[in-house]
Amino acid sequence: MTSRPREHQLPASTAAGGPAPTVPPAREPSHAERCRTLVAGEQRGALSTLAADPEGYPFGSVVSFGLADDGDPLFFVSLIAEHTQNALRDPRGSLLVTEPVPDGADPLASGRVTLLGLLSTVADEERDVARARYLEANPAAAYYIDFGDFTFLRLSVDRLRYVGGYGRMSWVDATAYKAAEPDPLVDAAAGIIEHMNADHAEAQVLYCRHLAGLRETTAASMSAVDRYGFDMVAVTPGHRTAVRLAFPEECVTGEHVRAAMVAMVAEARAAAAS
Amino acid sequence: MTSRPREHQLPASTAAGGPAPTVPPAREPSHAERCRTLVAGEQRGALSTLAADPEGYPFGSVVSFGLADDGDPLFFVSLIAEHTQNALRDPRGSLLVTEPVPDGADPLASGRVTLLGLLSTVADEERDVARARYLEANPAAAYYIDFGDFTFLRLSVDRLRYVGGYGRMSWVDATAYKAAEPDPLVDAAAGIIEHMNADHAEAQVLYCRHLAGLRETTAASMSAVDRYGFDMVAVTPGHRTAVRLAFPEECVTGEHVRAAMVAMVAEARAAAAS
Repeated sequence: MTSRPREHQLPASTAAGGPAPTVPPAREPSHAERCRTLVAGEQRGALSTLAADPEGYPFGSVVSFGLADDGDPLFFVSLIAEHTQNALRDPRGSLLVTEPVPDGADPLASGRVTLLGLLSTVADEERDVARARYLEANPAAAYYIDFGDFTFLRLSVDRLRYVGGYGRMSWVDATAYKAAEPDPLVDAAAGIIEHMNADHAEAQVLYCRHLAGLRETTAASMSAVDRYGFDMVAVTPGHRTAVRLAFPEECVTGEHVRAAMVAMVAEARAAAAS
Repeated sequence: MTSRPREHQLPASTAAGGPAPTVPPAREPSHAERCRTLVAGEQRGALSTLAADPEGYPFGSVVSFGLADDGDPLFFVSLIAEHTQNALRDPRGSLLVTEPVPDGADPLASGRVTLLGLLSTVADEERDVARARYLEANPAAAYYIDFGDFTFLRLSVDRLRYVGGYGRMSWVDATAYKAAEPDPLVDAAAGIIEHMNADHAEAQVLYCRHLAGLRETTAASMSAVDRYGFDMVAVTPGHRTAVRLAFPEECVTGEHVRAAMVAMVAEARAAAAS
């Protein structure tokens, strides 16, 4: 462990007043990857369409969605629903997808993405695939998926607006979004975070003290995890600091994460003893 | 209890095949009241505005909100945020507010409302009231509520689209919405439902058997409660049936509800014995 290049770094924001970083900060997912992951992890969003009456008003409604292989959202909607009528009249639309907000957390600090594009009826030859993708994400729809007065719509994504929390936002190109992979830990992340915070609080304090250099850390909790690393909030006297550490190598399963966490505890202990 | 008019009734949908109802069904909140209550119970929604680029696309974003006395939503937004720029350029907008979806429940069966109207900057003389209302709903905003690069916006509601679940929807006039009161049990309802389902499952079976006439009920759980009465799902052999019962009189506090529930158990036992 000690011979590999050190990837664990303080984010720039926490290094103020300390020694200048000598290696790049811990790798993070790109905003395109974060968008793709966020959308892959949810099955419900707010669809915005353009109303007929009052004319041209943007109209928000609740939708369930599945995903085409390229990340375009797929909807299964009643022909008589307002949003369907709106989309058939004017195809411009957007889908807002938000991360779940933990109890008591500030909703405006959570991630969300708005996917903008044109809505269109799924062609007959693509219907079977759309049906399968929609049902994968929404198995409870099986009992009405073959009703005749419903249709599949696709949102052909043109641009995306990503907001990762306060002051962390950008426009994302549809090409970058479509080329990005959802994080392989998307379904495991919540369980990993819960487990680390319930059972491995002490390990996290070691990481913050000896791998991130925050020697005065008294408590730490994990807030996010992805293939490249993880985020913690470290508590030091009078402060709460965001800390990101990279994994020694990319983790694509929960088992990889477990092994990396164990190795990093050993590394932190070695650093503490040296 | 026995001398007052009987208000407990099967909803029409459950009476099919049974005896025809002889008195009106249990009173329910109007859709205007349901909208007002739903909005009063939430502090976060999806705002739809019209984008500049790509031009005229409906753009969904996350917002926190408070409520003016007339039920118009009030927002506190960054001047550089996309939705703020959109609203200042074209005031047409809508706010989508959704009920929380219980774990495992079908999100499309839950209530939601879209409030359509024009967005405008809150005038200086109304700013103090807007600030107070917004902070009541979003106390965590206190630390940035006086930042200079934010502004208050009001959505002057013109029309509302209410969806209470599958097949239960209507347009609601803004005048009716503004005249309606939020249900006085809005903040107590979740606790009442949890308590009734945790500790009073047997009482609910009695209600369904002897006040709603579903003699074969084997289990029942509460799904909603309001000033006029409450909704249950009754399990009978091979069926799940929606049951609504009216309170003997309107209940505006949790204590009123408790007293009504006790009285209704006595009434159900008397009916069972007769």
